[in-house]
Amino acid sequence: MSVLIVGSTALDSIKTPLAQNPRLLGGSASHAAVAASFFAPVRLVGVVGEDFPKKYLALYRKHGVDLTGLQIQPGKTFHWAGEYEVNMNNRRTLTTELGVFEKFTPHLPAPYKQSAFVLLANIAPGLQHHVLDQMNRPKFVVADTMDLWLNIALDDLLRLLRRIDGFVLNESEAHQLTQQDSLSAALRKLHRLGPKYVIIKKGSHGSVLSGPTGGFICPAYPLRKVVDPTGAGDSFVGGLMGFLSTARGGVDANIRRAMVYGSVVASFCCEGFGVNRTTRVRRRDIEQRVQELEKLTRF
Amino acid sequence: MSVLIVGSTALDSIKTPLAQNPRLLGGSASHAAVAASFFAPVRLVGVVGEDFPKKYLALYRKHGVDLTGLQIQPGKTFHWAGEYEVNMNNRRTLTTELGVFEKFTPHLPAPYKQSAFVLLANIAPGLQHHVLDQMNRPKFVVADTMDLWLNIALDDLLRLLRRIDGFVLNESEAHQLTQQDSLSAALRKLHRLGPKYVIIKKGSHGSVLSGPTGGFICPAYPLRKVVDPTGAGDSFVGGLMGFLSTARGGVDANIRRAMVYGSVVASFCCEGFGVNRTTRVRRRDIEQRVQELEKLTRF
Repeated sequence: MSVLIVGSTALDSIKTPLAQNPRLLGGSASHAAVAASFFAPVRLVGVVGEDFPKKYLALYRKHGVDLTGLQIQPGKTFHWAGEYEVNMNNRRTLTTELGVFEKFTPHLPAPYKQSAFVLLANIAPGLQHHVLDQMNRPKFVVADTMDLWLNIALDDLLRLLRRIDGFVLNESEAHQLTQQDSLSAALRKLHRLGPKYVIIKKGSHGSVLSGPTGGFICPAYPLRKVVDPTGAGDSFVGGLMGFLSTARGGVDANIRRAMVYGSVVASFCCEGFGVNRTTRVRRRDIEQRVQELEKLTRF
Repeated sequence: MSVLIVGSTALDSIKTPLAQNPRLLGGSASHAAVAASFFAPVRLVGVVGEDFPKKYLALYRKHGVDLTGLQIQPGKTFHWAGEYEVNMNNRRTLTTELGVFEKFTPHLPAPYKQSAFVLLANIAPGLQHHVLDQMNRPKFVVADTMDLWLNIALDDLLRLLRRIDGFVLNESEAHQLTQQDSLSAALRKLHRLGPKYVIIKKGSHGSVLSGPTGGFICPAYPLRKVVDPTGAGDSFVGGLMGFLSTARGGVDANIRRAMVYGSVVASFCCEGFGVNRTTRVRRRDIEQRVQELEKLTRF
């Protein structure tokens, strides 16, 4: 089954202590789409400008991403520039040029509206609502978010939480949104806001699921070297939804494994700038790291 | 088999946003001894003053702790007072009165010298050396430490690392000692300093082992409420060594499970002040949480 992914499609200029990489393929939907493509056909909805490099369109296509829903509009592609500190834990934004993304309205091509699995990747909650308004009874909807929306679009986000099955957010966002110090308390409060499945991302410490059939502590793959963590969270949730959409059996039977697959794709994402490393990965590389994680967590 | 535990025995006065608790039983050896006692007979080496409450001696004995090696000396017991912030992540020391601990020299009673499993709980590395000097070919020696010794006794600590089998330290200490940002790189460097087994503690994010037969990502038990995290790390390593010392088969066959048991005892430690909660735990409470962690990590 296809997975529908809606989010930002951007050009990222990323500076780390070791290198500078201008105009990489970036954005929440791009990272999630590449990650999901290892497991399922992907339908993408986003917007780019006329300056969007043809090579990135070719890259999407190489990954079997359906681009019917990608709008190419007059103007410039969303451009983000950021800089990481030595330990890769802190980043600061240098530039945000919204370009055509400023007036983005996601339009779903007719076939997309029937998608069973929907990932509302990080994007304004208002736009996430607009996608759901166009859907015809999806089976499983997951939304990601970011701290920005907690600060400037909280009401939209809270309304969204009542319309989705799964909610994915960072640990710091979970604490901010719930005003709870303990993760367990934050999870309980998040469930009360709507979603049956809540996944809290903890970066290199892995992630945690709370769902109807219990919890899951998902490990992060231990990396020797982090080159660029941009898009790791998007890759995680993209891989997760891609895996889930084609796995036999229901969501409950597969969501833990789906998180592990998402975690592994995210680990590859961190090993290169933008999607440079992720797009070179083969399915058997993913399987190998999943097996390693099985060994690393067995007791 | 008995496990020998050498470390500090103290009175802790602990302040949190919710409560104030003067003169609790504290110190690295106390927490570790209580934790280990669920799995094995414990031999304790430490020092207390004449003011040390009789009820704490009774508490040790109730837990089957051999006190032949506990020196009771004229003067006052080591007293530490500290305060935690709201989220329990940061603490500051209010008072440190070393008392009889200032001139502590660990003397091992003859039978102790034959102990196969030795835990050098957090204490000056010079004293940890002095314990090893008295031992007769122990089977498995693990040392814990703290940032203070990295700052004021680094040479002693580095010499110690060449004499022990396992080294346990916090994530921040691992980064400080190795000057490596990534955990994998830090682990590799720590092995080069001597120990075959390195365990890095990550608080509520669990812990990580690197050993001769591979690694292990050990989960932390998800707590609803942390009352007082003092001694959690000591409880972890105490539980670990207690479990290991009585498990059938070698260290490699048991160390992962030992970490999980240590992690569970540490979770109980966090649920009360000092050893208040830990000392009320029954073995079946521990088994239940271990089973929960099995479910929480299976995929």
